[in-house]
Amino acid sequence: MLIQLNPTGVLDLLSQLEVDLLEKSSASERYKLFRNCALAVLNVGSHTDSSNEIYDKYQDFDIRLVSRERGIKIELENPPETAFVDGEIITGIHEHIFSVIRDILFICQKYEKDLKEQKAITHMVFDMLRNAGALRVNSEPSMIVCWGGHSINEIEYKYTKQVGYELGLRGLNICTGCGPGAMKGPMKGATIGHAKQRNTDNRYLGLTEPSIIAAEPPNPIVNELVILPDIEKRLEAFIRTAHAIIIFPGGAGTAEELLYLLGILLHPDNAKQCLPVILTGPKESEAYFNELCQFIEMTLGTQALDKFEVIIDNPELVGQKLKSAMASVRNYRKSEGDAYYFNWTLKIDNDFQQPFAPTHENMANLDLHLEQPKQQLAANLRRAFSGIVAGNVKDEGIKAIKQNGPYILSGEPALMTDMDKLLQAFVDQGRMKLPGSKYIPCYKIKA
Amino acid sequence: MLIQLNPTGVLDLLSQLEVDLLEKSSASERYKLFRNCALAVLNVGSHTDSSNEIYDKYQDFDIRLVSRERGIKIELENPPETAFVDGEIITGIHEHIFSVIRDILFICQKYEKDLKEQKAITHMVFDMLRNAGALRVNSEPSMIVCWGGHSINEIEYKYTKQVGYELGLRGLNICTGCGPGAMKGPMKGATIGHAKQRNTDNRYLGLTEPSIIAAEPPNPIVNELVILPDIEKRLEAFIRTAHAIIIFPGGAGTAEELLYLLGILLHPDNAKQCLPVILTGPKESEAYFNELCQFIEMTLGTQALDKFEVIIDNPELVGQKLKSAMASVRNYRKSEGDAYYFNWTLKIDNDFQQPFAPTHENMANLDLHLEQPKQQLAANLRRAFSGIVAGNVKDEGIKAIKQNGPYILSGEPALMTDMDKLLQAFVDQGRMKLPGSKYIPCYKIKA
Amino acid sequence: MLIQLNPTGVLDLLSQLEVDLLEKSSASERYKLFRNCALAVLNVGSHTDSSNEIYDKYQDFDIRLVSRERGIKIELENPPETAFVDGEIITGIHEHIFSVIRDILFICQKYEKDLKEQKAITHMVFDMLRNAGALRVNSEPSMIVCWGGHSINEIEYKYTKQVGYELGLRGLNICTGCGPGAMKGPMKGATIGHAKQRNTDNRYLGLTEPSIIAAEPPNPIVNELVILPDIEKRLEAFIRTAHAIIIFPGGAGTAEELLYLLGILLHPDNAKQCLPVILTGPKESEAYFNELCQFIEMTLGTQALDKFEVIIDNPELVGQKLKSAMASVRNYRKSEGDAYYFNWTLKIDNDFQQPFAPTHENMANLDLHLEQPKQQLAANLRRAFSGIVAGNVKDEGIKAIKQNGPYILSGEPALMTDMDKLLQAFVDQGRMKLPGSKYIPCYKIKA
Amino acid sequence: MLIQLNPTGVLDLLSQLEVDLLEKSSASERYKLFRNCALAVLNVGSHTDSSNEIYDKYQDFDIRLVSRERGIKIELENPPETAFVDGEIITGIHEHIFSVIRDILFICQKYEKDLKEQKAITHMVFDMLRNAGALRVNSEPSMIVCWGGHSINEIEYKYTKQVGYELGLRGLNICTGCGPGAMKGPMKGATIGHAKQRNTDNRYLGLTEPSIIAAEPPNPIVNELVILPDIEKRLEAFIRTAHAIIIFPGGAGTAEELLYLLGILLHPDNAKQCLPVILTGPKESEAYFNELCQFIEMTLGTQALDKFEVIIDNPELVGQKLKSAMASVRNYRKSEGDAYYFNWTLKIDNDFQQPFAPTHENMANLDLHLEQPKQQLAANLRRAFSGIVAGNVKDEGIKAIKQNGPYILSGEPALMTDMDKLLQAFVDQGRMKLPGSKYIPCYKIKA
Repeated sequence: MLIQLNPTGVLDLLSQLEVDLLEKSSASERYKLFRNCALAVLNVGSHTDSSNEIYDKYQDFDIRLVSRERGIKIELENPPETAFVDGEIITGIHEHIFSVIRDILFICQKYEKDLKEQKAITHMVFDMLRNAGALRVNSEPSMIVCWGGHSINEIEYKYTKQVGYELGLRGLNICTGCGPGAMKGPMKGATIGHAKQRNTDNRYLGLTEPSIIAAEPPNPIVNELVILPDIEKRLEAFIRTAHAIIIFPGGAGTAEELLYLLGILLHPDNAKQCLPVILTGPKESEAYFNELCQFIEMTLGTQALDKFEVIIDNPELVGQKLKSAMASVRNYRKSEGDAYYFNWTLKIDNDFQQPFAPTHENMANLDLHLEQPKQQLAANLRRAFSGIVAGNVKDEGIKAIKQNGPYILSGEPALMTDMDKLLQAFVDQGRMKLPGSKYIPCYKIKA
Repeated sequence: MLIQLNPTGVLDLLSQLEVDLLEKSSASERYKLFRNCALAVLNVGSHTDSSNEIYDKYQDFDIRLVSRERGIKIELENPPETAFVDGEIITGIHEHIFSVIRDILFICQKYEKDLKEQKAITHMVFDMLRNAGALRVNSEPSMIVCWGGHSINEIEYKYTKQVGYELGLRGLNICTGCGPGAMKGPMKGATIGHAKQRNTDNRYLGLTEPSIIAAEPPNPIVNELVILPDIEKRLEAFIRTAHAIIIFPGGAGTAEELLYLLGILLHPDNAKQCLPVILTGPKESEAYFNELCQFIEMTLGTQALDKFEVIIDNPELVGQKLKSAMASVRNYRKSEGDAYYFNWTLKIDNDFQQPFAPTHENMANLDLHLEQPKQQLAANLRRAFSGIVAGNVKDEGIKAIKQNGPYILSGEPALMTDMDKLLQAFVDQGRMKLPGSKYIPCYKIKA
Repeated sequence: MLIQLNPTGVLDLLSQLEVDLLEKSSASERYKLFRNCALAVLNVGSHTDSSNEIYDKYQDFDIRLVSRERGIKIELENPPETAFVDGEIITGIHEHIFSVIRDILFICQKYEKDLKEQKAITHMVFDMLRNAGALRVNSEPSMIVCWGGHSINEIEYKYTKQVGYELGLRGLNICTGCGPGAMKGPMKGATIGHAKQRNTDNRYLGLTEPSIIAAEPPNPIVNELVILPDIEKRLEAFIRTAHAIIIFPGGAGTAEELLYLLGILLHPDNAKQCLPVILTGPKESEAYFNELCQFIEMTLGTQALDKFEVIIDNPELVGQKLKSAMASVRNYRKSEGDAYYFNWTLKIDNDFQQPFAPTHENMANLDLHLEQPKQQLAANLRRAFSGIVAGNVKDEGIKAIKQNGPYILSGEPALMTDMDKLLQAFVDQGRMKLPGSKYIPCYKIKA
Repeated sequence: MLIQLNPTGVLDLLSQLEVDLLEKSSASERYKLFRNCALAVLNVGSHTDSSNEIYDKYQDFDIRLVSRERGIKIELENPPETAFVDGEIITGIHEHIFSVIRDILFICQKYEKDLKEQKAITHMVFDMLRNAGALRVNSEPSMIVCWGGHSINEIEYKYTKQVGYELGLRGLNICTGCGPGAMKGPMKGATIGHAKQRNTDNRYLGLTEPSIIAAEPPNPIVNELVILPDIEKRLEAFIRTAHAIIIFPGGAGTAEELLYLLGILLHPDNAKQCLPVILTGPKESEAYFNELCQFIEMTLGTQALDKFEVIIDNPELVGQKLKSAMASVRNYRKSEGDAYYFNWTLKIDNDFQQPFAPTHENMANLDLHLEQPKQQLAANLRRAFSGIVAGNVKDEGIKAIKQNGPYILSGEPALMTDMDKLLQAFVDQGRMKLPGSKYIPCYKIKA
C-alpha cells in the first residue's frame, strides 16, 4: 500500500538541502529516527506499548519525502491502518507527521549533540517550543500539565475525563505526554468543556521524545505536538510551560515525573515559585495516593509534601482551585518580570538536565541512600524510575533487558524496601504495562 | 440573585422599539413566551422533562432587557444554577439566550399568526433559518439530522455517541431536536471526531419550538439554535435542512418524526428525492426496531419500508454509508438546480404543514382507519403521537390531561391493537419520560 | 453582451418568493428601481452626472436574477464596461450590486411607504443600517462623515486625499455620499493611511438613495454601501452614524447638508450634543468658506457659527483635532447611556424627517423669510437647496425642469439677494455640475 | 526623548541569550548593524539619501531590548520624528523594526560569514525568506518585482502609481527594493487597486540589505520586509521570488539590476526559463529607454534585447500582459516540478553570487572589455554600477570617496565612451541622487 500525503502548513517549505537530510540513502541514525517517529505517530490506537514489538510488526513500513511544485509530498509505504478513515489519513495525525519532520530537522540543523551549559540547554528547550509555535505571547496563564499512567483502569480513565471537562469549562488548556490513559482522558473531557464555552483557540499540547513516542503514540486530539530530543529536555519543557500540574494515578513514569518535579521545587532558589500541583483521582484510587505520599515523605521528607495537594474524587474542586490559581501564577510572573508562556525563573540544576542513559551499569551504580541532600536523592530516584520505564516499554531498554536480564537496583535497605513495595503496588494494579500479558519486572531490588 | 449578561453577537443591536416589545409591562403572551424559552435554555441539565414542573419551580425567575451604551444587557433574576460555572454563565447558553430573543422578535415583527399558503409557510421556515445564519451557501451537503428519544438507556446513549464520533471523523455535521439522550449523544461524539480532524467549522444545529423547549432544553454543545414557532414548522425545518436522517431508538416523539417523514417521502412527487434515512441502534435495541418496522409495514405498507434502512450495531458502517451518500445528495440537488442548503424541491402537503392542536376533542376526532390514502394515514398517526408527546411533557398538554383525564384515541380495532402494543413497548422500555417516577399514560386506546 | 455573476455573501440566500419580487414581469416600480440602482452602481467612473443621460445611454441594459443550486446568479445584459477589468467585474462593484438587492428587498418587504411617526422613521433608518451590517457593536467612535462637492477642482481633490490620509493614519474611518470628488478623495487617502497602520478592518461607508445614485455612483473603494429610501432618511443615517463631520467645498448638495445639520444642532434639546464639525479646504478655497459663513451668519445667526470650526490648509490639524475629539464623543455617549454606533439621543424634528418633493409648486411655496424660528428657516433653506440638486442632476428633477422651466424661488429680498450671490458663486466655481458643458441654472431667484 | 515599543508578532519571543546578542555592551559590529538598520527604518520620509549624513544627524539615537513579562520591549532614544503620528509609532514601521531584529538574529545565529558553495548560498536566501514568512505555499504566481530609481521625476512617479494600480486591480502583488520613487509608487497604486478588488491578502514585499537601507528606507506600506545580508543575496532573492519583473526609469542601481538579470537570463541553462521582463515608463521617458537599450545592445548583443519588452505609456497594457503571463509562469513551474514561491531551477553562476566589495582597487581592476563572454561582461558591468551606487549613497562608499577621490574605471575605449554617456545621462536627468544638492560624480571614466 502506497499513500501520498499533501503538504500542509509551513512544513512543506523545505529546501532541497533539507529533503536530502531525511533521505533513506543518507541511511544513518537520522533517517531511522525519522521513520520510527513517523511510524509511532501513525500507529495511534495501538494496543501494545512495547516499542520493539511495534517496530518489528511494521518492518516493511517506509516513508519518503518527494519534491513537488507546491511543496514537499510525503509517501508512506504500508502504514498502520488505524491512522486512516475510509482511506484518508486523519488530519490530526497528518499534522503530527509534520511535527516529526519539523522537530527532527530542527534538532539536526541547529544543535550539536551534547549541550553542557545550563543556559544553552534551557535555550534549546525554549527554541524548540518557539519553533513549534507552542509559546503564545499574548495569552494568559492557562496551561495545565497533566501527568499520569498510560495504563489505568476504566474508573480512573473516566475520572481524568471529568477533570478535563471541568478544566475545559473554565477555559484552561491541557498539556500531557500525549499517549493513552491519563494522557488522553483530560483532553477528551476538555474538548467537550471547550465546545460548550465556544473556546476555539483550545490547546492540547503533547510533549514527547523519540524513545517513548512508540509506546505512547500521540492521540489525534493533540493539536500541538513537540518532539524534544530526550527525556530530560521533555521534562524541562513540561515544567517551564506549565502554569499548574495535575498528577493522576500512574506507574513508574508518573513516579519519575513527580520526583523530578519535587527535586526541583525543593531547590532553595525555587522557594517562592508559584506552581500549583494537585494529585487527584477517584475514590477508588485513594490508597494509591496514600502509598505514594508515604514514599515521598520517607524519602524527601515532610517539606516535600507541602509542595502539592491531594484531592480525592472531586473534579469540580480541582477545576475551581486551578482556575483561581491562575491569577496567582500571573501575579507571580508579573512581579518577577517573567514571561507567562515560559517559566524562565525556575531554577533547574544540571543534575536534572543531563541525560541519564539507563544502562545496566548506570542503573547498578545509582546512589540510593537516604543520607544525601534531598534534591540529589530526588535526582537519583528519578533516574531509577526512568530506567524502569525504559525497561518496560522502550525499544533499547527492552533489548537490553532481553540480553542482560533485569536491572539491579541496590542501596540503603530501608529505602529499597519501600521502593520495592511501591513498585510492587504498581505491578499489582496493572500500571506498568497495558493489559494483555503478564508483567515480568525489568528490575530487581537488592537491599 | 441578579445576574447581568453582556451583549454578544449582532443581537445586542436592538432598537428601543424592539426592547419595548419584550418588556414585562407589555405583559402579554409575548413576554411570557420570551421568559419561558429563556428559562428553558438556562435550565440545562435538568432532571425532569415536565415543562409544568419546571415553570412551577422557577416562578421567581425573571428576565429583562436593559439598554446600555454598548448595546443591550440582559438581567436575570434567580436563574437556574446549572447554567453557570463558578458564577459565570456558560458561553453556549449565553448564546442560546440570544437565539431566543432573535427568533421571538423575528416572529413577532415579521409574521402574522396564521399563514395558510404552502409557499408562504415554506418561505417563513427558510426566512427564520436564514435569519439565524443556519443556511450556508458555500458548503457541501453534510448535515445529518439525528432523531431519537430524550429518554434512552446507557447502552443506547453510548451508541449514539459512537455514531456521532464516526460522523464527526468524516466531517459530517449534526442537527437534532437539541435535548438530552439521542439528541445530545451524537453531538458529543462528533465533537471528538471533529477535533481529531481539526474541523473548526463544526455545526451542531438544534431545532426546537416553544412548547417542547422546556422538556428538552438545548445542550450547550448546540452552536446554532433556532426556535421555530410550532411543531410543524420545526419538522419542516428538519427535513428541508437534512442531507440525511438517522433515527435512534425513541418514544412517541420519535414515532411522530418517522411518520411525518414517511408520509412525505411516500408522496408521488417525492419519488425521486434523494434523502437517505437510516434507523440504527445497538444490538440490545434490535427488538425495538423490529416492532417499529412491523407497525410501519402494517400501517403504511411495504413500500414505506423501502424508504429507509436498518443498521444494527455498526456505527462505522452508518458513518461510511452516509459519507458516501453525500455525493448522491449533491448530484441530485445539482441535477434539479436545487440549493444544497435547503431542499426546496421536497413536496410537503398542506396536511403536514398545518398546526395540530392536541385538544381532547381533536385527539378524539382523529381518523385512525387503515382504509385511507397512506399519506393521509401517516398524517393522522403523526398527529396522534404528537398529542401523546404533548400529554407527556408539554405544559399545556399536561394541564389538559390533569383537567380532563387521558386523551381517548379510537379507530379501526386492528390498528388500535397495534398502536397500543407499540405504545406499551415504549412505556415498558422507559422511553416516554425521563426516569424518576412511574409513567402514567396520558392516553387511552379505544378500539 | 451577457454576463453572469456568481452569488456572493449572504445575499445569494434568496427565497423564490423574493426572486419573484425583483422580476421584470412584475413590471412595476420595484423592478425599475432595482434596474436603475444596479445600472448606477455599474456605471462607475462615469463622466456625466445627469441621471437622465445615463438612463438614456443604457436603455438596452437589463438585469435578472436566476436561481441556481448554489444560490442566486445575476445576469447582466449590456452593462457599462467601466465596471470590468479584462472582462471580470471589479469585486467592489459586485458587492455593490448585492447591496442594491439587499436594500430594495428590505424596503419592499418590511416597510410601508409613508412612515409618519418620528420613532418609526428613526427605527427604520436603524433597521436598514443594521441589516446592512453597518452598525458595529464593539467598536470605538471613529466614523468621520465627509461631505463636499462631487465636482471640485484638482487642488481641492488633492486636499481631500490628504485629509483622508491623516484620518487613516489615525485609525479613523470614512463615511461619504459615495460619489466622486470630495466623496472619493478622503477614502483614497485613508486607504493609504490605513495600509501604513496595518488597519485591516477599515470602513468606507457609502450612504446613498435611489434618486442620487446615478449622478453620484459609489466608487468601488466603498466597502459598505447602504441605499436608504430617500434623501431625508439618508441625511438622518449620516448624522446618527457620524462621530464627527468634515465639510469640504461643494455646491448646492453640500449647502443642503450643512443647513440640515445646523438646523438640527440648533435645536435646544441638542445643546449638549457632542458632534464635532469642521469645514476645511486648501488655501485656495478660503474665499469659498468666507462666503458660506457669511450666508450662515446672515440667515441662522452667529450662534450657528459656534456649531462648527473652519480650518484652512492644514490636513494634519484636522486629523489631530478629530482624533482627540473621539474621546469626548465617547464620554458623551457613555454619560448619556447612548450607543457608540448610533446616536439615538440626537433630536431630529419631524420637519427634517418628512420627505420634500421638489415640484415646481413646492419650490415656489417655500417660506423664505428671515423672520421665522431659526430651525424652521434652516429646514426651508435645506429644501430649497435640495430642490436645486434635483434640478441639476436627478432624473425626475431634470425632466421637470425641461418641461416647466426653472424653479422659481421667492421670499424676503435681502435673503434672496444673498442666496443668489451664494448660488452664483457655486456656478462660477464650477461646483454645480461636472465639467463638460455650460451650466444652465435650474432655478430663478425672485425677490 | 525615550519611547517604549510593545512587543508585536512572534518576534517578542526572544530568549535571554538572543537579547544578549543585540546588547550595546556586546559592542561589536552586530550592535552597530542593528542600530543602523533600526535607525534607517525609523527615518522614513527622509529627504536625503546619503547614509552617512543620516548616521551623522542621529548620533544620539540609541535602541535597547528590555525583557518584560509579556515579551521583549524595545526602547528607543531620540528616534527620528517622522516615524510617529501624534507620538505613536506608525504600525508599519513598528513591524519593520521587528523585521530588522528577526533578520539580524537569524543571520548571526545560523550562518557563518562567507558561504562559498552555490547550493549553500541559495539555501540561505531561501531560509531567510522562509523565516520571514515571505514564501507562501498555496498561492498562485502573482509576485511582480518592480525595479527603478529612488530619484525620479513627478511624471514618472505618477506613472509608477498607475502601473501599480493596474497590477492591483488584477490581484498581482508587488515586490521592490522598498525605498522611495519607483519603489514606492507601484505599492501605493496597487493599494488602491487591491482595495477596489477587496483583496485583503495583499503583499508588498520589500527586499533590502544593510548598506542600502539608510539611503532607501522602507516605506511603511511594505508589509513584508526582509533584510538580506548583502547586495548579491538581495538580488538573488529578487529573481527567485519574482514571477515577472518590471523596470521603471532609474539610475546606476537600476542599471546594476538590469545587468544582473540579463547576465543570468543569458546563461544557456536558463534558455527555457519563463520570467517576463517589461521596461516601462511614460511618454516623456522614451529617450531614456532608447539609451539604455542601445547600451545593452552594444555590450551584451541583440540576444539580450530578446529577454525583455519595452512598453511606453500604457499602464493598462503592462497590467494585462503580466496578468496573462502568470498562467505561463505557472505552467512552466509545474512542468519543471518547481515551486511557485521560489524559482529553484534558475541557474545563477557563482560570479553573480559572490559579494563584490567596491574598494578603489577592486573598481580599478574590473575587466571592462567587450571581448569576453557576455555573462562575464554582464557580471563585471554589474559590479561597476554597484560600486557607483555605493559611492553615491552608501556610508562606506561615501567615506572611501571622501578619502581617496573618485573611483577610476578604465577599459576598452568604445565601451568606456558608451558607459560615460549613459552615466552622464543619469546625472543630467537627476537620477543619481535625490534633488537638493548638485551631484558630484563619484567616478571617473578613463578610456
